[in-house]
Amino acid sequence: MKIIDIQEEAIKLNLSLSNSMFSFKEMTTSIVKVTIDNGSKLIHGYAFNSTGRYACGAQMRNRFVPRILDRDQNDILRSNGDIDPKKVVKKMLTGEKPGGDMERSVAIGTIEVAIWDALAKHYDLPLYKYINKIYPEYNSTNKMFCYVGGGYYDENKTLDDLGVEIQNNFDNGYRLMKIKVGGAPIKEDIERIEKAIKVTGSPFKVALDANGGLTNANYLEYARELSSYGLRWFEEPVQPSDYEGYNNFIEHYRSSVAGGENLYSEQDVYNLIKYGGFRVGMDVLQIDMPQSYGISYFKDCLDRLKKVNWSLDQITPHGGNQMSLHIACGFGLSMCEAYPNVFGVFSGYDDSYIVNDGFITLSDRPGIGFEGQNELFKLFNEMK
Amino acid sequence: MKIIDIQEEAIKLNLSLSNSMFSFKEMTTSIVKVTIDNGSKLIHGYAFNSTGRYACGAQMRNRFVPRILDRDQNDILRSNGDIDPKKVVKKMLTGEKPGGDMERSVAIGTIEVAIWDALAKHYDLPLYKYINKIYPEYNSTNKMFCYVGGGYYDENKTLDDLGVEIQNNFDNGYRLMKIKVGGAPIKEDIERIEKAIKVTGSPFKVALDANGGLTNANYLEYARELSSYGLRWFEEPVQPSDYEGYNNFIEHYRSSVAGGENLYSEQDVYNLIKYGGFRVGMDVLQIDMPQSYGISYFKDCLDRLKKVNWSLDQITPHGGNQMSLHIACGFGLSMCEAYPNVFGVFSGYDDSYIVNDGFITLSDRPGIGFEGQNELFKLFNEMK
Repeated sequence: MKIIDIQEEAIKLNLSLSNSMFSFKEMTTSIVKVTIDNGSKLIHGYAFNSTGRYACGAQMRNRFVPRILDRDQNDILRSNGDIDPKKVVKKMLTGEKPGGDMERSVAIGTIEVAIWDALAKHYDLPLYKYINKIYPEYNSTNKMFCYVGGGYYDENKTLDDLGVEIQNNFDNGYRLMKIKVGGAPIKEDIERIEKAIKVTGSPFKVALDANGGLTNANYLEYARELSSYGLRWFEEPVQPSDYEGYNNFIEHYRSSVAGGENLYSEQDVYNLIKYGGFRVGMDVLQIDMPQSYGISYFKDCLDRLKKVNWSLDQITPHGGNQMSLHIACGFGLSMCEAYPNVFGVFSGYDDSYIVNDGFITLSDRPGIGFEGQNELFKLFNEMK
Repeated sequence: MKIIDIQEEAIKLNLSLSNSMFSFKEMTTSIVKVTIDNGSKLIHGYAFNSTGRYACGAQMRNRFVPRILDRDQNDILRSNGDIDPKKVVKKMLTGEKPGGDMERSVAIGTIEVAIWDALAKHYDLPLYKYINKIYPEYNSTNKMFCYVGGGYYDENKTLDDLGVEIQNNFDNGYRLMKIKVGGAPIKEDIERIEKAIKVTGSPFKVALDANGGLTNANYLEYARELSSYGLRWFEEPVQPSDYEGYNNFIEHYRSSVAGGENLYSEQDVYNLIKYGGFRVGMDVLQIDMPQSYGISYFKDCLDRLKKVNWSLDQITPHGGNQMSLHIACGFGLSMCEAYPNVFGVFSGYDDSYIVNDGFITLSDRPGIGFEGQNELFKLFNEMK
């Protein structure tokens, strides 16, 4: 088996929406196509760098792709001759200084996930089953509870618009809705939250996401005001690595918090638990695998988290797409994010998937299954 | 005042040396030229992205430069009409998600430092005096103690070669030498350290740098074995944000440790102190300003560190170059790193500077003074 080509392209998302911290107006993402020669035919694997971080093609072109393609590939193979994605990550990290991970973890992770796609196709398995083949110590599943990450602030969006958005998602089968907070005055945010509770029918069907955007002046006010609502979780109340802030927030909020999507190394996720006051069995860790060195790195991260008694039930992927859905199913996590109609063609799952009382059942389409996302796959298919 | 052009170019360093974690074989750096129209003439400011992190021109071209040049610039001016670098940083951060700083902090910081160079030239002041003009609450100085960061592992480099390297630096006036550890078996490293102590004449004239490269299996052995040597400091014994590891190391090592060069936000530096067990008045914080959003951001970082009683004496720049030297003098820090003959043309200071019993006295050349580094300035001067 040999990786014979890696192509990348930057795609502009063209979105008007925003959260408490930034707008997506200029946002781009890198799509990647990896071609593997398995000895009898060429197999293409695809991935994209998820959402919220800009395209990273320059890093791929200048460093990570040549480190794979320009060198002998014997050191990236398993004993059975298959490509070992973990060894590919190690090779891409040649010549890289420790720390400052995000500058490379998104590019490396996206390439790594595309390699998994190709490998799963080689075995004619859906990715989640191939993950289980490689890591049988984790229990995979073909059925995943998916919640909607939405409720963004948008130009001229009213309280009623928010209600309609949530109702539409529930009509489509979703049973948990996450909305943004911190981008409006707290009084207005509370109205939005109460609207969401009313439409969903329960505070336990509503989660909040501040995207690290609360300030020193208001974050404890949010904690106190929202403490008793019984909401599902409160995500990123403070800056992603403000462990002291997380601790203070938790002390006043008491209910479930979530975080982790903007940490890009096993070490930083571990720090969030150890120093951020995260509580086993109560708080939620969110990891963006394609942005954090990929699937094999996530496996190491899971192993470390298990050692400190962290439960798989409390770990979910950031980013609602076919990649995170398969990873959640492959490792038997309990939940996955979904972004129906939020990030253009990068939103959502296989076109044929339906949500049934909150759950999606995966088909046996080989690999990640971007081939089942018509509009998105056009982008991949037009690549060289 | 208006920024009318920002150019960047990636330069390959072509070095064979290595530390415990990586080799510099492929390393590149971005050089930057900013052109300011001050109303009567054009002024050029220069900077480069220091060492150890790759060129970041794509981020500059795709995001940070257009955010400055393609928009109205009234919001980056002080009330007197001068450009305010802090406001420029804020503008470059438009559309950026919190966390994952290094992917942008190097590009933003390098542009920011080049702007300072142009502004200092506008006032016909050396940068350290211009820093003092803007931040008079910090005491500037024109004289700085400089130590040598060197002692790298290199192909075929012997113990005697290391001794000659150190002796040459001491002959040239330096009085403190930092050498790499962790890239050889501990027995060999101890021989290197004892050689360094012998040549310098005192363990207090020798510091160590493991570049985060010790392992779980050997870091406490290094701590115990080297604890009683009386060395100046032990830098980055563990991964840059492994606060638990720093704590354990400090418990066994007891003497002075150092760290911080691979943390890119005020928050992460603060975390190193708070959770890494760093001791006020004993341990050393090292910050790479051009790689960490630049000078105005560093000022905010200093203000925050002062609030937790951290002393300026214990804060030094990472990266031995004219930029870090001026920043150290501008804020009245107590020490600066030097890399004579290590990183090619990006090594060292003004060609005319001499080291006198460990100290360098700055000239009144306006700005950062790259114009006094003949070989390096050729690169800047050839830019569009």
